[in-house]
Amino acid sequence: MLSESSNSSIQPTKSHNYPGMFITLEGGEGSGKTSAIAHIERYYQEQGIPVVLTREPGGIEIAEKIRELILDRNHTVMDGRTEALLYAAARRQHLVEKVIPALQQGSTVICDRFIDSSLAYQGYARGLGMDAVWSINQFAIDGVMPDITFYLDIEPEMGLARIHANGDREINRLDLEQISFHHLVREGYNIVTAAYPDRIHKVDASVSIAEVAAQITRILAAL
Amino acid sequence: MLSESSNSSIQPTKSHNYPGMFITLEGGEGSGKTSAIAHIERYYQEQGIPVVLTREPGGIEIAEKIRELILDRNHTVMDGRTEALLYAAARRQHLVEKVIPALQQGSTVICDRFIDSSLAYQGYARGLGMDAVWSINQFAIDGVMPDITFYLDIEPEMGLARIHANGDREINRLDLEQISFHHLVREGYNIVTAAYPDRIHKVDASVSIAEVAAQITRILAAL
Repeated sequence: MLSESSNSSIQPTKSHNYPGMFITLEGGEGSGKTSAIAHIERYYQEQGIPVVLTREPGGIEIAEKIRELILDRNHTVMDGRTEALLYAAARRQHLVEKVIPALQQGSTVICDRFIDSSLAYQGYARGLGMDAVWSINQFAIDGVMPDITFYLDIEPEMGLARIHANGDREINRLDLEQISFHHLVREGYNIVTAAYPDRIHKVDASVSIAEVAAQITRILAAL
Repeated sequence: MLSESSNSSIQPTKSHNYPGMFITLEGGEGSGKTSAIAHIERYYQEQGIPVVLTREPGGIEIAEKIRELILDRNHTVMDGRTEALLYAAARRQHLVEKVIPALQQGSTVICDRFIDSSLAYQGYARGLGMDAVWSINQFAIDGVMPDITFYLDIEPEMGLARIHANGDREINRLDLEQISFHHLVREGYNIVTAAYPDRIHKVDASVSIAEVAAQITRILAAL
């Protein structure tokens, strides 16, 4: 199903056995994940279900320090495999300290980016191989896969234009990559989305915030 | 061959294609790796072969920072899988920045600890699974396996007694583990050694420095 091998190890994984619901949001820069997350939060809160919003590294001390290493602009020599292993390490610690405890308590956990980001960015766009990146991430997550993932699909040019127009955060090393990289990321996301049709729901993110929210509501209501 | 599965993925790996020789030293705390390394260094220098001595993180900035994270005594809550991924990340960067360039130039690289430490400590003694730890480390080393590995085998009680008697460095978090942990490490090393009889040479490290050196010389001379 994936591009690199016919006997791919990327297969649907049995999800966790915790009572809570684990939802992840994926998409390129400027795809509107923050607004979509706020919408999903309201959707569950209106049903009286406790919600935990998070994103890696999520205020987890060890994971924050790992993230600082990755994003430090002085580390232009960081090898791609080193970076992928560091992302997996930060993911593990965030999962253990924050996500799993919340799922155990029955909360709905909404996480901004998770394993699919690594597959699209490191595995596909940086060319490390999706199967290889999948493998180190399976070690990291140890079976705790999201129940639902929303992939907010948008043209990279439109996404980056939104970020720069907002000016609401510093531009980091990843933003400085060529636009062609962001097109590769989008291709990677579409490969992963095709590989997990039951888990990953693709949303057209080129439309207004209200229209994105309406798409998400329809998907959640149908579950 | 290994304890945990009959269809183990741990198999002899085709080594690198660089002109230099890649030698690693393995063993528990106080097994005398430093003296053994100095002996191997002299052995090659007497033949006029340039030698590079190193150990992870090897003065590589990114790898040093990763190592600081792992050894920080405040991080008692660090998950075992996080730690294993961080070791693999530091290994990757050290390999790319220091080991591979030296091998490319034809130097003999002697490295204090490498992949077998992760298999014995994280994979076996910490119970993460040798196959799983092998998998993330294969991602990290990408085929660059040692040509020769010396495993210095010693009773953990004797090794730790040597360290404390020398008093030549601060006791770190790993030293504070129970002695039973060090016995597990030794079991792990013996499993890995049995799995790679062509690559790993087991040396009796309970004897004097001179006798350990003599064992190593016999092995090197026979190659």
